[in-house]
Amino acid sequence: MVQLVAGDLNLVNAVILDRMQSQIPLIPELAGHLIAGGGKRMRPMLTLASARLLGYSGNRHHRLAAAVEFIHTATLLHDDVVDGSDLRRGKRTANLIWGNPASVLVGDFLFSRSFELMVEDGSLKVLKILSNASAVIAEGEVNQLTAARRIDIGEERYLDIIGAKTAALFAAACRIAAVVAERPEAEEAALDAYGRNLGIAFQLVDDAIDYVSDAGTMGKDAGDDFREGKATLPVILAYARGSAEDRVFWKAAMEGHRASDEDFAHAVSLIRSSHAVDDTLARARHYGQRAIDALGGFAGGAAKDAMVEAVEFAVARAY
Amino acid sequence: MVQLVAGDLNLVNAVILDRMQSQIPLIPELAGHLIAGGGKRMRPMLTLASARLLGYSGNRHHRLAAAVEFIHTATLLHDDVVDGSDLRRGKRTANLIWGNPASVLVGDFLFSRSFELMVEDGSLKVLKILSNASAVIAEGEVNQLTAARRIDIGEERYLDIIGAKTAALFAAACRIAAVVAERPEAEEAALDAYGRNLGIAFQLVDDAIDYVSDAGTMGKDAGDDFREGKATLPVILAYARGSAEDRVFWKAAMEGHRASDEDFAHAVSLIRSSHAVDDTLARARHYGQRAIDALGGFAGGAAKDAMVEAVEFAVARAY
Repeated sequence: MVQLVAGDLNLVNAVILDRMQSQIPLIPELAGHLIAGGGKRMRPMLTLASARLLGYSGNRHHRLAAAVEFIHTATLLHDDVVDGSDLRRGKRTANLIWGNPASVLVGDFLFSRSFELMVEDGSLKVLKILSNASAVIAEGEVNQLTAARRIDIGEERYLDIIGAKTAALFAAACRIAAVVAERPEAEEAALDAYGRNLGIAFQLVDDAIDYVSDAGTMGKDAGDDFREGKATLPVILAYARGSAEDRVFWKAAMEGHRASDEDFAHAVSLIRSSHAVDDTLARARHYGQRAIDALGGFAGGAAKDAMVEAVEFAVARAY
Repeated sequence: MVQLVAGDLNLVNAVILDRMQSQIPLIPELAGHLIAGGGKRMRPMLTLASARLLGYSGNRHHRLAAAVEFIHTATLLHDDVVDGSDLRRGKRTANLIWGNPASVLVGDFLFSRSFELMVEDGSLKVLKILSNASAVIAEGEVNQLTAARRIDIGEERYLDIIGAKTAALFAAACRIAAVVAERPEAEEAALDAYGRNLGIAFQLVDDAIDYVSDAGTMGKDAGDDFREGKATLPVILAYARGSAEDRVFWKAAMEGHRASDEDFAHAVSLIRSSHAVDDTLARARHYGQRAIDALGGFAGGAAKDAMVEAVEFAVARAY
C-alpha cells in the first residue's frame, strides 16, 4: 500500500505540514514531534488507497486524509496523557517533553483544525462521518478508562472498546473515499467494513505484541499494557482458561500489585501455556479475512491487491 | 437577558441533557456534574438573545446554542486539567473527583458531540465559524500556557490571549444567530463585534475579581491566578507602575516563590496602591461600551435592551 499511494501521500504530508502551523510556536513544535516522528500514516493511506480502488481522479481526498491524520494525532496526544506514557514510536512522548497541559491543548488544536479542513472540503456527509467517528473514539476511550485495572471485562466489552477506539477511524477513513468519489451507499458500506475489520485485526495484533516483543521492535515498552492494568484479549483469554491460582495472579496484576519484571515474565509464561497470544492472533486473522472479503465486490487491480496485502501484513506483524 | 430567553433556554437545556447521554455511564455523570452545576449558560444565551434581536422565528438556534455550550464545557474540563484546579463555580472540579484522564476524554466527547450537532443543523457557514473559533480557543490556551509564570508578557499579549481563549467563542455564539436568521454580512459582523468586546470585558472583570473577592462570591479561590503565576492585567499594570522593589516581588511571585497568604495580601496592596484593579475595570468599561455601540444599527426593543443590560451587568460585577 505504501508504494501505491506514495505520490498522493506526499501531497497529504504537505497539507499536514502546512496546516499544523500556528503563530504560537509551541503548536507546530509539539505537533511536529509526533507527526514527523515516524508515524506510518496508516489512516490517511487507507483513504488514499480506497480512493484509488474507486478510480477517483480528483484531489479532495488529500485534504480529508490530512484531517483524518489530525484526528488520529490529537487522539494519540491525549492517549499518552491518559496513560502517562513516556515512549511512543521509539521516541519520548510529547507529554514527557512538554508536559501534560501542552499535550492536551495542542491535541485540542489539531482536532479543531481537522474540522476546519473538513469544512473547507464542504461535504456535510464527510463531516457527519468523521464527527461521529470522533465521538465514538472518545466514548471508546472512556469505556477503556472505566475498564482499567479490571480483569473481569470479558471479550465482548474488549471488542466494543477496540471497535470504538481504533476501528471507528479506520472505517471512517475508508468510507469517506466513497463519499468524495460519489459512489453508491453499498460501496461506502463495503469500504467501512474493510476498514473496521482491518482496524480490529490491527489492534488485536498490537495487543498480542505487547506480550511477545520488546521496545526495540515495537516502538513502545513491552509489558506496557500489563503494567497499566489493561485487560487486553491475551489477558482475558489466559484468565478465562487459567486455574484458580492463575486467576488470583491476573486479578492482582491488573490491580497493579504484580508489576515487576518477574511478574511480567510469569504473565508471558501463563499466556504462552494457555495459547492466549496464538488465539488472539487467530481472532485477528478472522477479522482480517472479513476485511479482505468486504472488498469482494470491487474489481481487481493494483489498488485491491495493495489493500489485501495491507491486511495480510497487519495480521502477520507479530510473527 | 435571562428573562428574555428563559423559554428558549429551557429548550436548549433539553438538547444539552439529551445529547450528553452515552452508553458509557461515566460520560453523562461527569458532564452532568459540570453542565448541571450552576453554569450561567452565558454563551448559549448570547446566541438566543442575538436571534431574538434579529426577529428570528425558527428553532435551529436551540441546537446550535447547545453546540456552543458543549464547546465551552469541553474547554472548561480541559482548562481545569491544565490548571490543576480543584474548585469551579463553588464545586469540586471534575478532575478532582474523577481524575484528569476522565476529564480529558469526556471533554473530547463533548467537543465531538458539538460538531455532530452542527452537522445535524447542516450549515457549513456555522461549521466554519465554530470550527475556527475552536482552533482559536486552543491557540489562545497554548499561548496562555507558554506565558505562564512570566511577568514580562505585557498588555498586548494579554489581550491576544483573552481575545482567543474567551472572546472568540462569545463572538461566534452571537455571529451564528445572524447566519441562521440569514442576515447580511454587516449584521453578522456587528454581532461578532458585540460578542467579542463583551467577552474581553467579561474576562477583564473576571481577572480583576481575582484580586478583590473571595471564594464565597466568585465560586473559585481568590488568588488562584496569583498562585498559578498568571500575569493578568491587574498584575501587568501593577508591575509596569511599580518600583524596582515591587518588580522584584512580582517576578518572584509569578515564578511561584511568593505563594503564601501574606504574599497574596501584599500583592493585593500593591495592586490597590497602583490602581491596577480600578484601571483594569476601566479597560473593561471601554470594551463594554464598544460592545454596546456595536448594536447601534439594530432597532430598539426588549432584545436590544437585554443585550445592553448584559454588558452593563458584566462590567459592574466587581463592584
